[in-house]
Amino acid sequence: MLRRLSRYLPILEWGRHYNRDTFSNDMVAAIIVTIMLIPQSLAYALLAGLPPEAGIYASIAPIVLYAIFGTSRALAVGPVAVVSLLTASAVGQVAEQGTAGYAVAALTLAFLSGAFLVTLGLLRLGWLANFLSHPVIAGFITASGILIATSQMKHILGVEAQGHNLLEMAGSLIAHLPQTNPVTFVIGASAVAFLFWVRKGLKPLLIRAGLKPRLADMLAKAGPVAAVAVTTLVTGALGLDALGVKIVGEVPQGLPPLTMPGLAPELVGQLLVPAILISIIGFVESISVAETLAAKKRQRIDPDQELIGLGAANLGAAFTGGYPVTGGFARSVVNFDAGAETPAAGAFTAMGLLLASLFLTPLIFYLPKATLAATIIVAVLSLVDFSILKKTWGYRRADFAAVAATILVTLGAGVEAGVASGVILSILLHLYNTARPHVAEVGLVPGTQHFRNIRRHDVITDPELLTLRVDESLYFVNARFLEEMVLERLAESPRIRNVVLMMSAVNDIDYSALEALEEINRRLAEMGVRLHLSEVKGPVMDRLKRSHFLDELSGKVFLSQWAAWQALSRHARPPLRAAG
Amino acid sequence: MLRRLSRYLPILEWGRHYNRDTFSNDMVAAIIVTIMLIPQSLAYALLAGLPPEAGIYASIAPIVLYAIFGTSRALAVGPVAVVSLLTASAVGQVAEQGTAGYAVAALTLAFLSGAFLVTLGLLRLGWLANFLSHPVIAGFITASGILIATSQMKHILGVEAQGHNLLEMAGSLIAHLPQTNPVTFVIGASAVAFLFWVRKGLKPLLIRAGLKPRLADMLAKAGPVAAVAVTTLVTGALGLDALGVKIVGEVPQGLPPLTMPGLAPELVGQLLVPAILISIIGFVESISVAETLAAKKRQRIDPDQELIGLGAANLGAAFTGGYPVTGGFARSVVNFDAGAETPAAGAFTAMGLLLASLFLTPLIFYLPKATLAATIIVAVLSLVDFSILKKTWGYRRADFAAVAATILVTLGAGVEAGVASGVILSILLHLYNTARPHVAEVGLVPGTQHFRNIRRHDVITDPELLTLRVDESLYFVNARFLEEMVLERLAESPRIRNVVLMMSAVNDIDYSALEALEEINRRLAEMGVRLHLSEVKGPVMDRLKRSHFLDELSGKVFLSQWAAWQALSRHARPPLRAAG
Repeated sequence: MLRRLSRYLPILEWGRHYNRDTFSNDMVAAIIVTIMLIPQSLAYALLAGLPPEAGIYASIAPIVLYAIFGTSRALAVGPVAVVSLLTASAVGQVAEQGTAGYAVAALTLAFLSGAFLVTLGLLRLGWLANFLSHPVIAGFITASGILIATSQMKHILGVEAQGHNLLEMAGSLIAHLPQTNPVTFVIGASAVAFLFWVRKGLKPLLIRAGLKPRLADMLAKAGPVAAVAVTTLVTGALGLDALGVKIVGEVPQGLPPLTMPGLAPELVGQLLVPAILISIIGFVESISVAETLAAKKRQRIDPDQELIGLGAANLGAAFTGGYPVTGGFARSVVNFDAGAETPAAGAFTAMGLLLASLFLTPLIFYLPKATLAATIIVAVLSLVDFSILKKTWGYRRADFAAVAATILVTLGAGVEAGVASGVILSILLHLYNTARPHVAEVGLVPGTQHFRNIRRHDVITDPELLTLRVDESLYFVNARFLEEMVLERLAESPRIRNVVLMMSAVNDIDYSALEALEEINRRLAEMGVRLHLSEVKGPVMDRLKRSHFLDELSGKVFLSQWAAWQALSRHARPPLRAAG
Repeated sequence: MLRRLSRYLPILEWGRHYNRDTFSNDMVAAIIVTIMLIPQSLAYALLAGLPPEAGIYASIAPIVLYAIFGTSRALAVGPVAVVSLLTASAVGQVAEQGTAGYAVAALTLAFLSGAFLVTLGLLRLGWLANFLSHPVIAGFITASGILIATSQMKHILGVEAQGHNLLEMAGSLIAHLPQTNPVTFVIGASAVAFLFWVRKGLKPLLIRAGLKPRLADMLAKAGPVAAVAVTTLVTGALGLDALGVKIVGEVPQGLPPLTMPGLAPELVGQLLVPAILISIIGFVESISVAETLAAKKRQRIDPDQELIGLGAANLGAAFTGGYPVTGGFARSVVNFDAGAETPAAGAFTAMGLLLASLFLTPLIFYLPKATLAATIIVAVLSLVDFSILKKTWGYRRADFAAVAATILVTLGAGVEAGVASGVILSILLHLYNTARPHVAEVGLVPGTQHFRNIRRHDVITDPELLTLRVDESLYFVNARFLEEMVLERLAESPRIRNVVLMMSAVNDIDYSALEALEEINRRLAEMGVRLHLSEVKGPVMDRLKRSHFLDELSGKVFLSQWAAWQALSRHARPPLRAAG
């Protein structure tokens, strides 16, 4: 009973072994993560087009719910860059930024996403995420990084630029360049420069100064907090907001509010497809982080339970003033490196953020939006990596095409169209490849019982016996192709009396392909040629036995191609010795 | 030069051999087909929601254009039942039946369909039609037959029923039952009964009366003409139209008009998807008829040239007052049986219909719509055939699911949704089947060099050597599955020192799968287990050589599984003799 329950509530499993050591480790990790998350949460809320507190709220209830239902010990759930961008894109289509409708639509998006994830998890459909291939994800994240960085440039310049794709954004930025606010630009550019230096230069410096690498790493991660503190102080002290520097302003002080997502059918209809997309992308991002971290400690991640954990987190966000969340890469790695041992570390982080939202919000009144934009830009540019283009180009052009399409469409037509085109193109290219299967004419490798392609190997053949190895499962898309191929090959060689289809690579024969085989058998019989099969696999043979095909077959089914050769070839007469 | 031209203009090929014998055979066939086509064309125009003359016009220019560009010698192009239904469904969504806009939209649909088909043909993309599997087509035609027959019942009853799916239609018919026009019903019901009797009873009767079967068959085919003549005469003589019997009324007398399809962007946008659907369904129907007939005379059909022929026919329909056309089954079979030898028979049929539209239209003023509905009902009910459900159920459940979905969705949500769901479900089920591939653990069949599944055959195995035969191409959808499977299998058997992946059924390895193989190799190396491959196919090996995988591989690549066994197994030491 407890075992069954603990499948759906992993907390019952690790909760039993909780002790003081685990507690102190989790606590240290939580403090570090909390400090890192405060500026990050504010920044991602800005990216999603929501008020800053939404980012904090989206990190509290979701973390706790994931701690209860999730299977990863180190995953930190909350707002992440790509999902924030997707949220802005989806919600921007149904409501104006800054209105109450916008915030409600973000809640609805989180609710739909949570409901969808929990449903997938309960139906054990986690494998569906495999449709998003790794090259497509890599391309998508790179393109998103570029889009996000570009979208934040307006905050660095202090202008009102906008646009739905890279060209529009860049064009709008250039058009608004003359209106650049110089003070904002100084703050934003210094923050970007500082954060890049912290990332690349500070850590080696600290290590040379004698700090341990891990501590140096932690301190470097606190860079954004320093940037936030310094720019807020300067802006407040000098009253820079009067010079046109946009600041965060008043952030409500208090517990996350109880909120109700909008469930009007029209709103749900408009947000359903984006919610599904956000769910799948979020899930794929989250599970790859979770598995990377779990592998390091030889722990196990259950993809279906992860769906439930992330779904619960999103439902939590929907009812506490948040927006769609998932497991983030940066925050999870920090959590893991800081020594988090159980999901309780997440719960402590949530408490830290709760305290922040109760007491710290007045302190960020003067925080410039340019600083937040700088933290986003520096974070996402580390995601940009075009090496996947080079790798796939060298290996397989179809994969390259899928990556290139994902990147170009994401940049040119937005994130939703980008992912959709990557997935659809991957599937179509896969089908295209199987539509014209490789069919090799094979012969016997001398001195063995092994048969290989006559064009690649020096093999023995018999002019009256044609053996074709079909290198693909037979199904509706390629069934007619095989039919045409066999008949054309026979028209070329009128001496052929026996045709063997070697089925070692045929893993399935669907009904359309069965009809094609029946047709081949009939046509060959009319020409006085017998059709045989060899090396038919067990599951395929079981299926063929359920049809009339085997009764009508003019020839035989041989267990091995060697047996077919012995029965049908003239060359088989002199006894051949196997090698070895 | 002429050869190249005759690829695109098959008329240059058969035209050179034309003589008096061919002419007289073609002429006889043309007369028979013309007589059959007159009522059929009128009826299908009614089904498409167009005035009756549109059906005649759609049979004239298209037939001539197909004769010039098409490759089938016997295919008769013109309005057919399913395409007429699809036209009514598509055009009904953009214009009111009976308006000028409706007719123009039908022309636009023909134009778009023609342009799409010609484009596919020039790009040699005929293979795309293979995505419509045979079971899906069979299910779709059966469901369409039911929908069409139901939609015509209102004309038999003389009521105004309507509806977009089977339930709505049936409900509306029942609701309107009290308003049935008794005279119309008598005419309609008698016509249906007569036509069924002609089809089932007349032919045997005529044969028993001493007629030759072929002549008896031809006479039976003229049944609709008799029904049209008798009911028109009776209605006209008794003035039944005054009693509420709906008649065809005035049909313009003259040559087909020159018409211009509407090309407003909005209209084109609304009709593009239906036009693509109509094109593909029409093409698949047409090519299967053409290939069936060509096979009987050992002639060849070129699918890409067929696309051009059908495309030209539709463009012709668009500019001469017609609507979308394709090669019809019934008319083509009649043409073939009547002895048509070349596409010239089609041209003569066009002339016959031209004469009919010049001189015969006043004679059908009193033709009751109920008679036309009766000819449609009897024609389409012969298309209804549920046996595909039984056949696919017995053979393969995935095919059954695709057929059942096609039938149910077509009946419940209309023809377009029906075909789309059939195609999409076929593709998804195919992907699902390849997502969790069959992986068999294999051992040596004693006395051979052949390896088979340990669960199905009595084979020799080695506890330190695990050989897995992967029965599917490896690609993004199943890459992770293989990774998990291998690691789980190893966790069960700690004695294993060598793992061989037997790749005889792996026809492709995409980039995601390459990464999975690299991961498997890395993980096994950590456990001190070596990974080997065997029977890797030529194209797959070429691809792997372009990556670093083979350099990193902890084990070897063996030409055959037998070679792997000899190198790695303890049992291989005593020399084994091959059978035979």
